Amino acid sequence: MKRRLKGVFVALTTPFAAEDVSVSRFQDNIRDYNTLGLGGYVVLGSTGECLSLTDAESEALVKASVQARGEGKLIIGGTGRESTRLTVDFTNRMADAGADAALIRPPSYFRTRMTPEALKMHYWTVADRVRVPVIIYNIPRNTGIAMDSGLVAGLAGHPNIIGLKDSSGDVSFIGETARRVPGDFCCLVGSGSVFLFGLELGAAGAILAVANAAPEICLRIFQAFQERRLEDARKLQSELIPLNKAVTETYGIAGLKYAQQRRGYHGGEARSPLLPLDDKARADIDSLLLKLNLREKP
Amino acid sequence: MKRRLKGVFVALTTPFAAEDVSVSRFQDNIRDYNTLGLGGYVVLGSTGECLSLTDAESEALVKASVQARGEGKLIIGGTGRESTRLTVDFTNRMADAGADAALIRPPSYFRTRMTPEALKMHYWTVADRVRVPVIIYNIPRNTGIAMDSGLVAGLAGHPNIIGLKDSSGDVSFIGETARRVPGDFCCLVGSGSVFLFGLELGAAGAILAVANAAPEICLRIFQAFQERRLEDARKLQSELIPLNKAVTETYGIAGLKYAQQRRGYHGGEARSPLLPLDDKARADIDSLLLKLNLREKP
Amino acid sequence: MKRRLKGVFVALTTPFAAEDVSVSRFQDNIRDYNTLGLGGYVVLGSTGECLSLTDAESEALVKASVQARGEGKLIIGGTGRESTRLTVDFTNRMADAGADAALIRPPSYFRTRMTPEALKMHYWTVADRVRVPVIIYNIPRNTGIAMDSGLVAGLAGHPNIIGLKDSSGDVSFIGETARRVPGDFCCLVGSGSVFLFGLELGAAGAILAVANAAPEICLRIFQAFQERRLEDARKLQSELIPLNKAVTETYGIAGLKYAQQRRGYHGGEARSPLLPLDDKARADIDSLLLKLNLREKP
Amino acid sequence: MKRRLKGVFVALTTPFAAEDVSVSRFQDNIRDYNTLGLGGYVVLGSTGECLSLTDAESEALVKASVQARGEGKLIIGGTGRESTRLTVDFTNRMADAGADAALIRPPSYFRTRMTPEALKMHYWTVADRVRVPVIIYNIPRNTGIAMDSGLVAGLAGHPNIIGLKDSSGDVSFIGETARRVPGDFCCLVGSGSVFLFGLELGAAGAILAVANAAPEICLRIFQAFQERRLEDARKLQSELIPLNKAVTETYGIAGLKYAQQRRGYHGGEARSPLLPLDDKARADIDSLLLKLNLREKP
Repeated sequence: MKRRLKGVFVALTTPFAAEDVSVSRFQDNIRDYNTLGLGGYVVLGSTGECLSLTDAESEALVKASVQARGEGKLIIGGTGRESTRLTVDFTNRMADAGADAALIRPPSYFRTRMTPEALKMHYWTVADRVRVPVIIYNIPRNTGIAMDSGLVAGLAGHPNIIGLKDSSGDVSFIGETARRVPGDFCCLVGSGSVFLFGLELGAAGAILAVANAAPEICLRIFQAFQERRLEDARKLQSELIPLNKAVTETYGIAGLKYAQQRRGYHGGEARSPLLPLDDKARADIDSLLLKLNLREKP
Repeated sequence: MKRRLKGVFVALTTPFAAEDVSVSRFQDNIRDYNTLGLGGYVVLGSTGECLSLTDAESEALVKASVQARGEGKLIIGGTGRESTRLTVDFTNRMADAGADAALIRPPSYFRTRMTPEALKMHYWTVADRVRVPVIIYNIPRNTGIAMDSGLVAGLAGHPNIIGLKDSSGDVSFIGETARRVPGDFCCLVGSGSVFLFGLELGAAGAILAVANAAPEICLRIFQAFQERRLEDARKLQSELIPLNKAVTETYGIAGLKYAQQRRGYHGGEARSPLLPLDDKARADIDSLLLKLNLREKP
Repeated sequence: MKRRLKGVFVALTTPFAAEDVSVSRFQDNIRDYNTLGLGGYVVLGSTGECLSLTDAESEALVKASVQARGEGKLIIGGTGRESTRLTVDFTNRMADAGADAALIRPPSYFRTRMTPEALKMHYWTVADRVRVPVIIYNIPRNTGIAMDSGLVAGLAGHPNIIGLKDSSGDVSFIGETARRVPGDFCCLVGSGSVFLFGLELGAAGAILAVANAAPEICLRIFQAFQERRLEDARKLQSELIPLNKAVTETYGIAGLKYAQQRRGYHGGEARSPLLPLDDKARADIDSLLLKLNLREKP
Repeated sequence: MKRRLKGVFVALTTPFAAEDVSVSRFQDNIRDYNTLGLGGYVVLGSTGECLSLTDAESEALVKASVQARGEGKLIIGGTGRESTRLTVDFTNRMADAGADAALIRPPSYFRTRMTPEALKMHYWTVADRVRVPVIIYNIPRNTGIAMDSGLVAGLAGHPNIIGLKDSSGDVSFIGETARRVPGDFCCLVGSGSVFLFGLELGAAGAILAVANAAPEICLRIFQAFQERRLEDARKLQSELIPLNKAVTETYGIAGLKYAQQRRGYHGGEARSPLLPLDDKARADIDSLLLKLNLREKP
């Protein structure tokens, strides 16, 4: 498994039709992405609006992704919940639905109580009790919890904890962590704006929201890095930043889905309480796609 | 309904036995509290570890509370979820289980996108579609979202939005809001440390975690205020602060459940990832109870 | 001294004329305030834009306030700086200029290093070396440092530390602190929105920005509380909140100075980088003053 | 000037002797650094404990640095103050003392009022009135203000604003900004943990605290990047992260000065309220220096 946690993974959006999950559009997207050389998919990630889905919808999406994925593509389920027990149960349910691994964010509602000790207990217990390998998810912007590399290094000692996704934006966290974990523990970059630098500091790959809209560029960065064409990699990384900021920070998931739609994938609206895009935002994203020469998917 | 949203409500803890929800202990507690003159109960609140419960457990708790409550006691369900649709569905399910009203925190995972406009859309749509009245819940410490009194005043125009619970700790938010809403919109204080002052600024009552452990003191504050014995009220409020801080901020729910247990109610452990109390914390809480002359319940 | 730290203190604004400090307008204001029954004045507070003043301007303001104050009015200088040594030197310079006491905010530029231990060392050393009594200043909104009542209680053991000003907005901090300090240690409320409640929890008085614009209302709250006319006090406190929010939070010092000007005191513009008010803000403040029946000073 | 804002700049510490500024030790350090190929020095930066220095001490340090610097080395003064006027006056005083350029952090005490509009007005006015070129300083960890690349791009239109130092840790901010400013506007990295990545995104160099203790490594990263030996650069960057975290985040300036001392430069203690290091911290830093093969300076 650890050997396969490498390359570019798309943190898939969840397409809706008339407010219901559209499994067929979701599978269409995956089939389109299958042709591109990606490592696999994250289903039920933050980008997938996992917190807006029912358990039944979640299960249907995991099953659909397993069915639609190309050969050799990993399916990683975002299965973190607010308690240890709920996380274990939901992770095992998604494992039964076919997920190959689980990406688990820390419980965060009681964030002031999520000491390193509490987080260690949580992840260790989860890893003991779930039937798929666990990837730790550091995403302070949404959880209010900034993990420490010492905590991750300690958790890396558990045989069922195989990796880290870091979306902090401070890429040195990956560098610091990569130096403290065993060689086969996989660090994955969670921000498209610093993907290349994570690779330079030892990351095995990335799980990226922007890859829904611009998978080719993400893949080209990875390939250029692999082939040590670092000038090419730098140029691509630099060019990707404005679009990545727009579809993650400035306009969020609604912006990402719009960009995805413009590329010829199924995007559509996000579920409420996320608001629809206004015209200025659309024009802004159109212009960013144009600058990157990203038109309809080939 | 609005006339009944008055007085002291306990934000009930959820007792566990061997990690499972103990409906019988939960009902024992309610039956004990029934004798005390409370306005009613919040089931599935933050204090009830609602985010650590399954939907089935949640439903069982609401049903159990309806069965056990004394005559005239309101059952308010904490039914906020991360999307508008999930909130509507879960609220209606809990309404069917018997909840009289719904206490709804704002979605917060995508907190940077929760603009006043997005929150207004969320609450307005929820209020349109649920079968019980809605109480807005402002709890910035946990959600990272500090509401504005203008937003609350706007939402108060919806016929199915009947009140606000404010746990910000800055009691002037209640004062500011109370001045901007219709007279029958109910403001409830969410922090035991400033209960009296909320009353002085127009609150109709409070929903309090500390009332699990010290319901008598909360009630005495309310009665003293009602009878305009303000010196008594002040003294009681001042005395309550150290215990309230201990069982909400310093030691959290584990501390509250310990205090509750010491009073002769069912407390017990919190669900992981909340950690158990250490000895120092227990001694500290023992000493605070002693100072308040709170021994076993009468 | 401690006996005199009682009642309402104005956190004086600093009037400018053509961008220079106008000592004469500053003294005019003080002479007007002298007639009102206030306890005294804070010169060089946050409201006085102390961080925008040179040392020479600061010294001139302290001297001017000493000269203009009415009999029995205390002059408290805001003398906190970013290092222990600078704080000692500046405090002693202001003491030499005539300040009776020093209000000292914590150093905050290196806020992550301002542990309780570092703060304790800082305040203790300052108190040892300055020639006037010290009042601790808790103002987390501006410093990013939320003090703990245990820290304040420890510092209250120093013979030259005589009080606390709390501008946290969470009035229970005063309640908690007042219970842990010797009876002659003075707690002063720093927010006009919760003044009365601080008094109810044991505060000796308040240092208020809003008192520049509405000193009569602040004084009436204090008198009503002293005379145990608590209904009157409540009503006044509730009425004061909207104006206080406007001139502290919503519009800040520029708003406060505009309100002050409308009352017939010298207000005028704030120093850059604070921006001037726009028309909407002016109309909003006009309307709030009108609601409070606050026209030109009598 | 812009052509010279290139390479590695040391954000110099300020050595004290018996609590007084030691100009001779400060000059010793500079003379040692002069031999190493650095671009120049920042005097009065955050690392130099500028907020703990008097104006006279500040002036003496600038003069001393001008005297001691090697040929071609730039002297950049950290001259930001809390008001526009104080910033102008202090900057001009330091310019008269010999500073070649000014590094100016935003006013931050009234951070909620520091809107993009207020910051634009501040920097523009400062740039109009000072006699040396201005470098904008983004350091959200200390100021609580996260600048926007649009703001910086707008300010880059002022002929006297020549660059940006970014210490946010999120290196994509430099990438985004570098794409929006004229080609001769210089972006400088402010964090040793992401130095290389800033260069890859278009930064001209860096101003680094860690360069006090490990200037050779910082220079080797820069040289390797210049010569496109990117594998070497990556390796060095990765190795530098643990020491950089220790002497900036974990132990702060006291840790940095200790590391500097161990390298044979003058370090010594920081001014109070910064606390001295304990033994564990010393051992930790010793071990980090050892791993990097950094012993006494050659």
